[in-house]
Order: sequence, then structure tokens, then C-alpha cells
Amino acid sequence: MSTIRPSLALTCRRKLAAHCCRARYISSSSRRCNSPSVPSIARLLDEGPPNPDHVVVNGYVRSIRELKRVCFANIGDGSSRESMQAVLTHEQAKGLSYGSAVKMTGAWKPCRPNAKQSHELEVSGVDIYGPMDASTYPIQKASMTPEFLRTMPHLRTRTPFNSLLLRLRSTCIAEITKFLNEEGFTQTHTPIITSSDCEGAGEVFNVNSSRKDAGLDGGEAYFFKDAKYLTVSSQLHLEALAQSVGNVWTLSPTFRAEKSDTSRHLSEFYMLELEMSFVDDMKVVMDMVEKMIQQTTRGLLRSRLAKELTVRSQGGTEILPERWKILAQGSWPRITYTKAIGLLRSSGEPFDHLPAWGEGLGIEHEKYLAELHKSPVFVTHYPRSIKPFYMLASSTSTDQEETVDCFDLLLPNAGELVGGSMREHRLDPLIISMQAKGLVAPGLPASITDEQMGALKWYIDLRRWGSIPHGGFGLGFDRLLGYLADVPNIREINTFPRWVGRCEC
Amino acid sequence: MSTIRPSLALTCRRKLAAHCCRARYISSSSRRCNSPSVPSIARLLDEGPPNPDHVVVNGYVRSIRELKRVCFANIGDGSSRESMQAVLTHEQAKGLSYGSAVKMTGAWKPCRPNAKQSHELEVSGVDIYGPMDASTYPIQKASMTPEFLRTMPHLRTRTPFNSLLLRLRSTCIAEITKFLNEEGFTQTHTPIITSSDCEGAGEVFNVNSSRKDAGLDGGEAYFFKDAKYLTVSSQLHLEALAQSVGNVWTLSPTFRAEKSDTSRHLSEFYMLELEMSFVDDMKVVMDMVEKMIQQTTRGLLRSRLAKELTVRSQGGTEILPERWKILAQGSWPRITYTKAIGLLRSSGEPFDHLPAWGEGLGIEHEKYLAELHKSPVFVTHYPRSIKPFYMLASSTSTDQEETVDCFDLLLPNAGELVGGSMREHRLDPLIISMQAKGLVAPGLPASITDEQMGALKWYIDLRRWGSIPHGGFGLGFDRLLGYLADVPNIREINTFPRWVGRCEC
Repeated sequence: MSTIRPSLALTCRRKLAAHCCRARYISSSSRRCNSPSVPSIARLLDEGPPNPDHVVVNGYVRSIRELKRVCFANIGDGSSRESMQAVLTHEQAKGLSYGSAVKMTGAWKPCRPNAKQSHELEVSGVDIYGPMDASTYPIQKASMTPEFLRTMPHLRTRTPFNSLLLRLRSTCIAEITKFLNEEGFTQTHTPIITSSDCEGAGEVFNVNSSRKDAGLDGGEAYFFKDAKYLTVSSQLHLEALAQSVGNVWTLSPTFRAEKSDTSRHLSEFYMLELEMSFVDDMKVVMDMVEKMIQQTTRGLLRSRLAKELTVRSQGGTEILPERWKILAQGSWPRITYTKAIGLLRSSGEPFDHLPAWGEGLGIEHEKYLAELHKSPVFVTHYPRSIKPFYMLASSTSTDQEETVDCFDLLLPNAGELVGGSMREHRLDPLIISMQAKGLVAPGLPASITDEQMGALKWYIDLRRWGSIPHGGFGLGFDRLLGYLADVPNIREINTFPRWVGRCEC
Repeated sequence: MSTIRPSLALTCRRKLAAHCCRARYISSSSRRCNSPSVPSIARLLDEGPPNPDHVVVNGYVRSIRELKRVCFANIGDGSSRESMQAVLTHEQAKGLSYGSAVKMTGAWKPCRPNAKQSHELEVSGVDIYGPMDASTYPIQKASMTPEFLRTMPHLRTRTPFNSLLLRLRSTCIAEITKFLNEEGFTQTHTPIITSSDCEGAGEVFNVNSSRKDAGLDGGEAYFFKDAKYLTVSSQLHLEALAQSVGNVWTLSPTFRAEKSDTSRHLSEFYMLELEMSFVDDMKVVMDMVEKMIQQTTRGLLRSRLAKELTVRSQGGTEILPERWKILAQGSWPRITYTKAIGLLRSSGEPFDHLPAWGEGLGIEHEKYLAELHKSPVFVTHYPRSIKPFYMLASSTSTDQEETVDCFDLLLPNAGELVGGSMREHRLDPLIISMQAKGLVAPGLPASITDEQMGALKWYIDLRRWGSIPHGGFGLGFDRLLGYLADVPNIREINTFPRWVGRCEC
């Protein structure tokens, strides 16, 4: 009988009568699990226990096999894709099922020579942390489809591969944070609720208090006086900070209210955005993209994740390390958009659509260009007409072919990962460019009033006093993780994915 | 005359006629600033230049003084609170004003023995990056009130102290990331848009597409089928991940649609939330709070920020290091709420309100308790009636005094920084607790249907299969930075602060 804590017992004893557990359940009076002193299973497998005669393991039963004399249980705790093998008596295994949360104590013994693992736990004691009805548990030992698992993001991370994706995300963040810190970049927190819905990045979400009378004086329609939106990009705010403290970056949630139902788009996703100040050559920004991704990937290659992801390869080939090697080194080709259009048009490939100069590239074209080079490829200098207002005109522009100093980084089999540009840092050309997109009222730049500048007046301000040349980029962080893990659908990468009509938990 | 890039020149030449600049402005044809090879001013001041005869500096004029023979300019770039002194001829200083963005080249020379700095830049060349009309520049050299600066968060970070706050945030993030990574914690990205508005943390913001017809089929009222909200806490989602991968944390934007107009509350702020799995003793969680804050502060003490913040102290006393020393060491007292109420009631202090057992503590009480101990203080075991549904009942509860296993960490002069608890990990007691708060329909826990569980069914699910004891905490990250910088109002700490009626940029 598990000991119900006194207060609840006093008030709800009858209701809890059903909460009857086996004697082996850990009761609150004998509770002792204190994780800091208990090593993770990854550590146990990698380094062995400090004291082989007395090992304590916390984890979940991933499988259980009953033989004639003994039972074998595989125990995982999410720290490793592999599980630890435990040997139990039939008596000890009683009540255990797939998914049970357990504490096991025992001795660390060498396995037979041909076994998959070098050691196993010879169990002396088992405690079960809580009841487990395997018959209703939605997570099955058998393979489940990604679509099925997406219906329960709160449980799917319990599977070995999905918990590995969590660790991949964490390790990537740590590597990037370390790298950019060492490079002298300042990590910033740019705002999520913003005033502008007109940065040209597509549909936006709006935000308001859920109470109708939430305004300052009790009678207003808006909590923040007027309409506010979820950020579609941190770039504009980062530019303000780059003029304050030098090179800056952020890893921030970003939002698009688009109805896209694709494997590459979500309504909520993480973007790594970075801005470099006192830079007037786009090469410097592309060099930083290359260096950051390469250093991060090298960090991953040194981690145990590299080994864990190799396990996924099929037919004996090590698919994943190849992908990682591509990202870890080399000088990635840089071609202009104009050249890219030429390559595509002369390729003879049966594209769904063959782009002409002045049109955007589709995913089929992006993949083709990267696969052609067998490498990540920077495509630079796109036409101004298909790019946002803030990009700097290229010095190589002609009257016929007006381009901007911008680039996309395309990956083999994956398409666009990074988009960046030099920013228009001169006041009058910026105003003219914003006028062309309808963001600022028409008129001579010199005589534009604050009201005519509209919601982005603050952004124009940055060019009014002490403006500097600068450039930066945004990297789709979930896309990077998807590429590294060879998971084509971003809905498996984002822990709690949101898209049109879908927002579980 | 600055060279306008060809394309814009071709299309807008007349409009740009007013954009006439002095010859010394950096033109796009001679553009060369390339930050990676140019050291920051902080590095120059700390380490000196690699080649003292040829130094290049990018920065902003913070002050300029004209003497009879020469001019002195102080140049800052946000990397250091101190600025670098440059010595120029009157000719070189022409056109420079407070706020000008400049590139200076010259030689690194020792100053006179009594000077504030050891070295100064003897300038050989000056380039101005862009026009600067000092007469309209809202940022003045003279001291400006925090209230005035709040009206322009896009410019206030240019002041030396506000850029220091950006660097403090960055260094703190890097130290915490490093510490938790080394402790084996997995950093996660919990969702911002969530399904539940009922976690008991106050008013929420709701989110929807700004297009009325944004639903899946073009005619629905909601983008995500039903109402969605901005997260008020990542804890519930973190609990799901703690059952998947072990100890987890997140540093996430968090939102409250409360009308609070105080120095301690914002509508958008960053929370560091952490969850420890297989832990059944709250002491372990409090130990982690203590260790994390102490290690982070020790990291800061080793950084140049410690020295920079010391400059702020008044009357010669080093106020800030004292604050940091308090956070960097010691075993912080832990007292129960019941004892705290006793201390407050017997203190004889003229509180605005004297709390009785069962009432929450106000900021005046929190500050008193921490100042009484001259240390951060954990106050533990609050009454269940004033705490959220998910907290675990204390084993020491009595019929008269029902408490939960929770704690708040209170700081001298600042009040609450951290709130944490053990979580109710048992299925039936959780359902009963949620019923008591009206979150689940009444009825015997065993026979509750999915529909009756409501929006938090997924959270209840976590207890249905393989539940484990666990606990965690949330730390107000902006509050921590405010305490470290001795800035009492969180609106100065948060880079783009949002509160009721206010959302600049």
C-alpha cells in the first residue's frame, strides 16, 4: 500500500482507496532517488560505475524478455539511444512492463564475449515508481508512424530516437553559444510581441489580452493601446542592438500565420539571427555563416551524438557522418543568382517549373544547385524585386538587372538553411526603398514626417544618427537540426510543433 | 560626394541630390571596415593592439573637447563602459560630433603619467560612416532619466550603461548554459503558443491569425481550430520532457497579460525554468538553485563586467561586488513559511500589512526576511491554499496546516527571484487537486473521462504511464540581471520592455 501523504489522506481517503499499489512501489516514507548521485545510463555505458558492486539506475523499461531461468530487461533513461541490459529473477520482474519507471540496484558484471554490450546489471533490487497500465499506453514498443506520434508530443519524446533529438538540440545550442561567445558576439533577447506587421515576411499572428476590458483604463480594445503581433523576425531589432554593442545574435522563437502544410514550415519555430556591425563586405558575413556551422558540426562530431546517429544508417553505409562531414569542413561555393538561373536553365532537368531571371527559386531548384556542387552552396545577389526592403543594392547592379547584396545558403537534399544580406544603412535610400514597398508615405525623403514613416519609424531612426554599414543572417534552427539528424519533416524536429489547425498541448 | 550605388543612382538620382556628404565620408567604392580584423575597444584597452604603429578602431564619438592645439575625442563601441581617448588635429576633428560613427586609424601611444588611461590613439586618419545631426539626436551626453530613455529602447542601448546591461545578459546566458551543460542538463525549447489558459498564473494573452479567414478551411474563426494563448510558464511542458530525457531546462519568453504597473513585472519576460527527474527530496532542487546561481556569479566575477559595474558605486564603497559576493557563496538559510510568518509577526516592523498564516507574503515581507538574514533565503512549505494545483503535499502537513513542498528564494533588497516545488506525480492525487481548483470535472478519479480532464488532459497523461517523482523551479531571468546590476526597475533590464499600454518598437 503506498503511503498517501497525510493532508491528502485526511481529505480524500475514500477517493483514493482505488489508488492501491503493490508493496514494491516506492512509498513516500522510504523515498530516496536523488538523481545527482545516480549516474545516467549513458555515463554508465561509457565509463562504467564508480563502484561495480553497488550500482543504482533510474529509468524506464524498454523491453522485457522472460527466459526459463531469468528475465532480461532493457532499461533506458533518454540519456542514450542504447539501453542498459538488466538480468532479473522472475520474482524481481513481476509487475514490470514496457514503459514502467523503475529504480534498479545491483552489480555491474561483464557479459558473455559475443553479447552486444560489454556489461550488464545483475539486479538485486527493483522498485517501481508509479503504476503503469501497458494495455492503455499509447507509446508502443513496435515502430510507430511519425504522423501517429505527432498527435502526442508530450509522450513521443519518450521514444529513444525522439529523446536523442532533444539532446541534439541541446548540444547544438551549447556549441553555438560557446562559439559565438568566443568570437565576441553578444547574445540578446529580442522581443516576441512587436509593433509592426509589415516586414514583408508573410502573414502574422496578432496578440491581445484574452479579457475584453484589458486596456489601461478598463475600456480599451487593446492591451497595448493598438494592435500588436508575434515577431516574424528578430532582424530589425537586432540591427538596433548591433549599433549599440557590436556583433550580436539571438536564438528566438519566430512566428508565421501561414497556412503552409509542408514538411519545411511551422507556425512557431526557432531562428538563429545574427548581425555584424562595421561590416561592408558581404563576404565577411558569409564567412561567419560557414565558420559557425562548421565549428558547431565539429563539436557535434566530438560528442557521443555522432555515434548514436550513425546507428540509423541503412545497408551498412554511414549516411549521417557523411552529411556531417559536408557541414564540418571545406570552402563552400558561392555563385550568383544570375549564374544559378543559367545553370538551372541549361541543366536539362525536368523541373516542375523552370525559373526565368527575376523569379524566386523553388525547393527543387535549391536542392539541384546544392547537389550539383555536392556541397552547401551560397547563392548571392538576387533581384531586388523579390527581396525585402532593407537589403542593400549591389554595386554590380545594372539598369537591366538590379540586384541586392544578399545570399541564401542551400544544402544538398534540403534546400535553404540560411538567408542573409547587407542592410541598407543610408537614410535616404532606405526611405526610398520603403516607399517602393508602400511602407512609408510618398514624398522627398528629406521632408518626410514622423507620421508618414509609420510603424517602422524607429527602424528609420537607426539611420538618422551615427549609422554604420552592417549585415547579418537568419538560420532556421529546426531545419539545421533536421538536416543533421536526417529527419526530413520539421514536425519531428520541433518538440511541440504548431501549424495551421494543429497545436497539441 | 558619397558614391550612390548604381541601381539606386539610376532610378532615384534627383531624389537623392539632397544626400550630399562631405568627402571624408566612407564611400561605397572605397568601403573597407571588415570587423573581424578590427579589435573591439575593450580588447584594445585590456590587451593593447597587435601593432601599435597601425591601429584601426570603429566606434562612436562619446565626447569631444577642443583645446588650443589639439582635440580630444572619447570613442566607445559598446564593448566597454570606458571609452578610448583619441588625439586629433582640429582639421581631423572637423565634422565630428557627439554620436558620430567613425573609423579612426593611428598609433597607440602612452599617455602622460597622471592620465586616466595608460594609452591613447594618436590619430592619423578619420572616416565618418554616415551623417549625424547632433541637434536632433534624442540621446544626449548629459544624464537622461530612465523614463525618458524607455520611450526609445531602439536608441537607449547606445548609452554606455545600457550597452553594459546587454553584455551582462549575454555573459549570464553563456555562464548558465555552460554550467547546466556540464551538469548534464538538456536545454529544450518549450512552446510559446499553448493550448491552456488555466495554469493558475494569472491573465493570459490570446493569439490568432490577423486574417479573419485564416482557418484551415478558409472559414474558421481560429487559425489553430480553437483559442490559443501565449505561455505563462514552461513548467508543464518541461515536466513532459523531464520524463523523456532526464534533467531539463529552458530559457524562454513568458507572458502575462496583467495590468501591473510596477518595477518588478512586465507583460513579456524571460524565465529560466528547470526540472529534475527521479528526485523526491526538495533539498536536491534547492541545492541546484544555489549551485547554479553561485557558479554563474563566480563566472561573472571573473569577467570584466565585475570591474565595469564597480564603477557605479557611490561614496567610494564597492556596492556591487558586495551584492555579487552574497550570490557567489555560502549556504543560504532555509526556513519554513510557518517560521517566516512567526518572524514577521514578532518583528515589530511597521509593515503596511501584517500577514497571518494562510496569506501570501508581500514584497515588504520578502525583503525583510532576506535582509534579516543578510543573505538570500529559501522560504519553504507554503499553505496549499495559496499555491497552484501541481504542487506535492508536504509530508509534514497537518489537518490544521496543510502545506506543499515548495520554496521561494528571496533576495535582500529585491524579494522573490526563484519559485520552485516538488510536483504531484501520482495520478489520483493530481486529479483531486485539479478538481479542487476547478480544472477537472468532479467525480471519482478512476472514472474520469478524457473530456472531463479538459485542456490539461495531456498533463494528466504524464502520470498515467511510468510516472516518476520530480521537482523544479522558475527563475525570473530579468530580475536576476536587475539584482546583479543594481537596477531596481526591470524596465531598464529588459531590452524592449512591454507592459500594459506600452510596447515600443
